[in-house]
Amino acid sequence: MNQTVSGAPTPHLSIDGERLWSSLMQLARIGATPKGGSCRLALTPLDAQGRDLVVQWMRDAGLSVHVDRIGNIFGRRPGLDSTLPPIMTGSHIDTQPTGGKFDGCFGVLAGLEVMRTLQDHGVRTRSPLELAIWTNEEGSRFAPAMMGSGVFAGQVSLEKALDTVDQNGESVRDALQATGYAGTQPVGARPIGAYLEAHIEQGPILEREDKVIGAVTGSLGLRWYDVTVTGMEMHAGPTPMEIRRDALYAATFCIQAAIEVAHAHAPNGRGTVGVAQIYPGSRNVIPGTVSFTVDLRHADAAVLAEMDRQWRATCAAVAQKHHVDVNVEQIHYFPPTSFDAGLIQAVRDAAAGRGHPARDIVSGAGHDAVYMAGVAPAAMIFVPCKDGISHNELEDARPEHLATGCNVLLDALLAQAGIVGEGE
Amino acid sequence: MNQTVSGAPTPHLSIDGERLWSSLMQLARIGATPKGGSCRLALTPLDAQGRDLVVQWMRDAGLSVHVDRIGNIFGRRPGLDSTLPPIMTGSHIDTQPTGGKFDGCFGVLAGLEVMRTLQDHGVRTRSPLELAIWTNEEGSRFAPAMMGSGVFAGQVSLEKALDTVDQNGESVRDALQATGYAGTQPVGARPIGAYLEAHIEQGPILEREDKVIGAVTGSLGLRWYDVTVTGMEMHAGPTPMEIRRDALYAATFCIQAAIEVAHAHAPNGRGTVGVAQIYPGSRNVIPGTVSFTVDLRHADAAVLAEMDRQWRATCAAVAQKHHVDVNVEQIHYFPPTSFDAGLIQAVRDAAAGRGHPARDIVSGAGHDAVYMAGVAPAAMIFVPCKDGISHNELEDARPEHLATGCNVLLDALLAQAGIVGEGE
Repeated sequence: MNQTVSGAPTPHLSIDGERLWSSLMQLARIGATPKGGSCRLALTPLDAQGRDLVVQWMRDAGLSVHVDRIGNIFGRRPGLDSTLPPIMTGSHIDTQPTGGKFDGCFGVLAGLEVMRTLQDHGVRTRSPLELAIWTNEEGSRFAPAMMGSGVFAGQVSLEKALDTVDQNGESVRDALQATGYAGTQPVGARPIGAYLEAHIEQGPILEREDKVIGAVTGSLGLRWYDVTVTGMEMHAGPTPMEIRRDALYAATFCIQAAIEVAHAHAPNGRGTVGVAQIYPGSRNVIPGTVSFTVDLRHADAAVLAEMDRQWRATCAAVAQKHHVDVNVEQIHYFPPTSFDAGLIQAVRDAAAGRGHPARDIVSGAGHDAVYMAGVAPAAMIFVPCKDGISHNELEDARPEHLATGCNVLLDALLAQAGIVGEGE
Repeated sequence: MNQTVSGAPTPHLSIDGERLWSSLMQLARIGATPKGGSCRLALTPLDAQGRDLVVQWMRDAGLSVHVDRIGNIFGRRPGLDSTLPPIMTGSHIDTQPTGGKFDGCFGVLAGLEVMRTLQDHGVRTRSPLELAIWTNEEGSRFAPAMMGSGVFAGQVSLEKALDTVDQNGESVRDALQATGYAGTQPVGARPIGAYLEAHIEQGPILEREDKVIGAVTGSLGLRWYDVTVTGMEMHAGPTPMEIRRDALYAATFCIQAAIEVAHAHAPNGRGTVGVAQIYPGSRNVIPGTVSFTVDLRHADAAVLAEMDRQWRATCAAVAQKHHVDVNVEQIHYFPPTSFDAGLIQAVRDAAAGRGHPARDIVSGAGHDAVYMAGVAPAAMIFVPCKDGISHNELEDARPEHLATGCNVLLDALLAQAGIVGEGE
């Protein structure tokens, strides 16, 4: 046995891109949808079929499999020093109702492919390695999203999560029992050496810039608002312009301000109005009430607070100028997350070593890694997806990009876990 | 008999305001709604009950009653010279589903009150006088609105109008038969000396300026549009601001432009967006498509065309700047109407004679008088309504304002018809 210990990348060791792709396609057949996506809502029989398949693959790769009380699955590969905290990778395999083949699944099966590769080459690491499948990341069936990692990280109450019911009244607790994934291991409460998650970008940046690897530096914080503008409903014909209290006209300025405050805080500001409803909604009646949603995001909590302040000030000015009431209610806040500087650098190093220098990127969406960042050094590896489309059956990614992302994951994980030897 | 002939106002002759109010309240009891309005959709049994009541009142006032083939009712009071075309007044007594007590009914019952007053005082006029009740002004049951006057003025085909069906498939033809108002008189095709219609303003101007009489100089022309803005649906989190094609953000500029082009063409410009729909309509998805309506109005056809041009130019610029498609489709056009200068002056003179100098005003909504202006000198008299509210059970008006409007109608009609004598 070659007892060299090294934390450096091992460019001579590479994953099997075809095997990774083949596994992705095989998992996608469970709950396959007509348009090429997958539907495996969390803890349904189809999700359980998917779990069973991946658990079998984990065992075939030599991992010991453990399930915790919220149904998170961990496949463990021992290290030389079992007292060291595990270096963990993972993601989720539950999907949106019209989900794609890659969201979550890539992270899990890239981790599996790393384990398979290490097994193929008889590589031993100093730290144990673990591959996690987090329960109910999507939140489509049971709210909130990122439930399993949220409980693991102590940010979501286990009992509350288990009591969560779907729209048919079935609880997470019952669904875990029904699928056979009501584990006995305590949730979280154990040290994790590092957490690294590979994922499709779910946005258009890498593709547009022709980059293969994104080194994710953190995730955007988010503020969600419900806004109601109340003016006065009047007839479109007889009412002169100067006496109107047009709720829609006023609302357009508030909507623009939400978007423009994000432009003003580039590159990591986001401002979106996705829903707007106009009352009474008649062609020749001046709108009396307009309700709309606002989604503001930024990577820096202080900047996000400043965006909130500036946008609210505009809303107040609009209310005064247009003689309407503008009611702004913040209904949700999720703080920005900064990933671990050392682990981000490990991703950059691994990407460079594979000949694909990483682009630093911020995740606009939530991921299990965001919760994990609260309990361990964490980072993510992004690979491009076609047209930035995700949460859609049309979601697509190129095999060579996934293979490169998986090799970067391999190298970065090994850099953390330390190679003890290979080729027994 | 006093054979003086005069076209001048007769301030010593006045209508009975209490009788007018009482008749309005009596008619409103037919189809009365819980919130104080009336529901007498055109050519329903309740509308027929209202017609029967007013026809009886017409006969009691000495009028001969004629019904034409579209169900328009004419109560005729002979003049000294039966070869002269009649001086006509009138309006409608059908209502919106949740209509008020005054819209239309005031014009008909003010005309009736004039006839009653002339009868009381034995006044003879040179020209015959006619009181018209137009069929289906509201258009709530049978589209389009202003059907009876439209056929009378030759702007709507009689056969097409008779074939129009309601949502239960019943035709105007059948409804006329069922209610007993399928008359035999040809529709229109006879000279009318002048047409004068009294109406509540249905807007807030008179009330706000504390005026009792509006001398209506014409009605606004109208262009209706359906607009669709198509951008690209993307996730709110991962998509940077600078690459977005946000259909709602782009749409807000088109919406503002429709309103601002009306402000820029004050006082008779109007711009309203009453309906807007956002797709896919999810809080964290950038809208891919926004559809909205636009209602542009102006009193001058050339100015309205210029408003159209300016607004479309802005839409085109928005499309280019925001990388979206903006599709503008004009779905309806109704030209502006200018009322007869001499008849408008007669209204002003009558109002001044009654101590309530008229405010010139343009009708923002359509009325039977707009069609009648195509076949006779026409004008209207507006009186205030509470808070400008109409097409609503809360519609309200003050008895003294209605009485003054009715006196102005009396004087203006007599100025046209010529008094031959009174007090036989």
